[in-house]
Amino acid sequence: MDARFDGLYSATAHDLRRSVIRELLKLTRNPDIISFAGGLPDPATFPTREIEEISAWVIRTHGATALQYGPTEGDMGLREQLCKFMATDGIAVEPKDILITAGSQQGLDMVGKIFIDPGDAIIVELPSYIGGLQAFAQYRPECHGVLQDDEGMIHGHLEKKLAELHRLGKRVKFIYVVPDFQNPSGVTLAGERRQRLVELAEEYDTVIVEDSPYRALRFEGEAPPPIYAVDKHERVIYLSTFSKIFCPGFRLGWVVANPELMDKFVMAKQALDLCSPPFTQEITAEYLARGYMPAKLKEIAKLYRVKRDAMLGALNRHMPRGVKWTKPQGGLFLWISLPEHLDTTELFKTAIEHKVAYVTGADFHCVGSGKHTMRVNFSYPTVEQIEEGIKRLAQMFKEVI
Amino acid sequence: MDARFDGLYSATAHDLRRSVIRELLKLTRNPDIISFAGGLPDPATFPTREIEEISAWVIRTHGATALQYGPTEGDMGLREQLCKFMATDGIAVEPKDILITAGSQQGLDMVGKIFIDPGDAIIVELPSYIGGLQAFAQYRPECHGVLQDDEGMIHGHLEKKLAELHRLGKRVKFIYVVPDFQNPSGVTLAGERRQRLVELAEEYDTVIVEDSPYRALRFEGEAPPPIYAVDKHERVIYLSTFSKIFCPGFRLGWVVANPELMDKFVMAKQALDLCSPPFTQEITAEYLARGYMPAKLKEIAKLYRVKRDAMLGALNRHMPRGVKWTKPQGGLFLWISLPEHLDTTELFKTAIEHKVAYVTGADFHCVGSGKHTMRVNFSYPTVEQIEEGIKRLAQMFKEVI
Repeated sequence: MDARFDGLYSATAHDLRRSVIRELLKLTRNPDIISFAGGLPDPATFPTREIEEISAWVIRTHGATALQYGPTEGDMGLREQLCKFMATDGIAVEPKDILITAGSQQGLDMVGKIFIDPGDAIIVELPSYIGGLQAFAQYRPECHGVLQDDEGMIHGHLEKKLAELHRLGKRVKFIYVVPDFQNPSGVTLAGERRQRLVELAEEYDTVIVEDSPYRALRFEGEAPPPIYAVDKHERVIYLSTFSKIFCPGFRLGWVVANPELMDKFVMAKQALDLCSPPFTQEITAEYLARGYMPAKLKEIAKLYRVKRDAMLGALNRHMPRGVKWTKPQGGLFLWISLPEHLDTTELFKTAIEHKVAYVTGADFHCVGSGKHTMRVNFSYPTVEQIEEGIKRLAQMFKEVI
Repeated sequence: MDARFDGLYSATAHDLRRSVIRELLKLTRNPDIISFAGGLPDPATFPTREIEEISAWVIRTHGATALQYGPTEGDMGLREQLCKFMATDGIAVEPKDILITAGSQQGLDMVGKIFIDPGDAIIVELPSYIGGLQAFAQYRPECHGVLQDDEGMIHGHLEKKLAELHRLGKRVKFIYVVPDFQNPSGVTLAGERRQRLVELAEEYDTVIVEDSPYRALRFEGEAPPPIYAVDKHERVIYLSTFSKIFCPGFRLGWVVANPELMDKFVMAKQALDLCSPPFTQEITAEYLARGYMPAKLKEIAKLYRVKRDAMLGALNRHMPRGVKWTKPQGGLFLWISLPEHLDTTELFKTAIEHKVAYVTGADFHCVGSGKHTMRVNFSYPTVEQIEEGIKRLAQMFKEVI
């Protein structure tokens, strides 16, 4: 390894690590391997016909603006459509409250940039979304984890952690939650916990980062309100994305925040990439304007429900005693826990020998715990692959337990 | 202003400033104002027909991959096409040496992230590209400027600055140059200075960031080689973009770097936005593969040459004594210097009253100089607007000189 430039790197660059998931995925390119490791939507859900038609329409009717630089805040038509879209979920905002981003990931990076100085305390879930952890890690925070149970982040633990940090004179910069069908656990934060969460944010004078890419993909049960809608103090930054409900290949997401915070996000976005692509924003706006989204959401939820059922069924049929898993009511993932003496990172090679792949649980834990856990995805593999893959995983577990 | 969150911001967020250009542009939306302030390409150069056709082709032939997540490094087809494109300019690289970015701006942000810790020394041109200065400023460097003359950054001054910083025990993290038809000055770095620049980078053990968005738009004269091609020590990071030669609305640029540095760029990109959009990357790759680019470059250069000639002609005809300007051989901008006692920031309101706009020169200078200068753009306004706008500017100058 050429190390000539070591002395030139920033502290952040010295610490930069390749994404564990992305590196693991390289091992799973062998077509014999059934991979539950990715987080990809099923491409059968992409509205290719509509996108083809609308792309041509955008270029024909206003190509000169679609191919030009656009406003940093995002295409006005798309932000107007997003206001209507979020209103159906109880989120009342105006276009000025929205910034269009390059997927949620860019929103997470900006959250890190805006709030974190090296050593600052932040609170995340155990486990938490790996892309969020990675984005925040660039800014070198002191990362505190709060355990989840089947109803999400345990509010008693959160309260204890906030009090403890307060006693130490550490102000918590933000609390990061993926409240709906969490990536990676599949768990949804219960309604009364959302209420308690916003009260605690107010009490401890911090903000909540609500990252909600999967919320619209509910298969069953009643949805608790978005944390953004529960909050009365403008302390919630709401992030979402078109990646799981439309297509990830446009790399379009959005941030909702109060005017003071929005000002910081817009300035951060200017320095990051000036603006997101007007072309794909206008296609997406027109897709929403033509009213395609409600039926598309139903179609995706229906498909993923079948796949989740296939996975739960296979787990029930094949898994040995001692293996537990979550039962998500929506989204793309579920979470498997092995007996605590097992280490899914050590077992990864064995899994590859069994021609099945997952993401190691430890990588979703900022505090080194979760070694006996793993994330599995049910949106991308076929029903047949789910059955066969879970069978292979169960076979391996039987050998090692 | 709500300042509740002041205590939560990072040092970077406290310092974040809105882009001067973007804010000034808001003043110029009045259609009576002739604006030389923007940096937009002429939309008449956008290949709308080809993009419409290729968009449909991409979706029809491989919609499932174009709309899915893609590799962080960028679409392989596009990187292969870029290798061929750069080879015609004497840059010999393989796809693994290239990372696709969200315009050059994302490349500049990553340069800041990878190299700058607060207080680190960097060297930029006087004047320098405002978007680069803004990207780097987020990482809070100590910014040193080196004057340019008609042949670009003055190498004697650069050598003196490097020696001085070396004596102070400060390692220069990088030297940032826009060598071809510089934004903002329009000046091109002379061939022998490129040679001296790479020698100095080797001698002082630093890297050169070569930001080259305008290089392919040469109207006349012989092009000196890219700094990347002159360098023998892999010390050059080369940045470019499709924004000025294809369309800015796709927000696609690229970075070329040696394998050690590339590793850092790829990891930084993962945390920023996972990947750039496969859809627009594949459209761009196909546009290059179909061989449209050489004719397009000639067409753009021909159009901008006419506009530059219109601007130089108008300047010659209308400007009072004491006003000087550069004579760029390509690109989108030229640079006007007034007598030193005048301040273009103070004059901006007067200019707006005269219904003409520019960008204030001080904002391109990291060290507070350049108050009597301004950038004017000739790619976006029509030939008639150029004549009338320069006349208005000259009238105002006559009143204040």
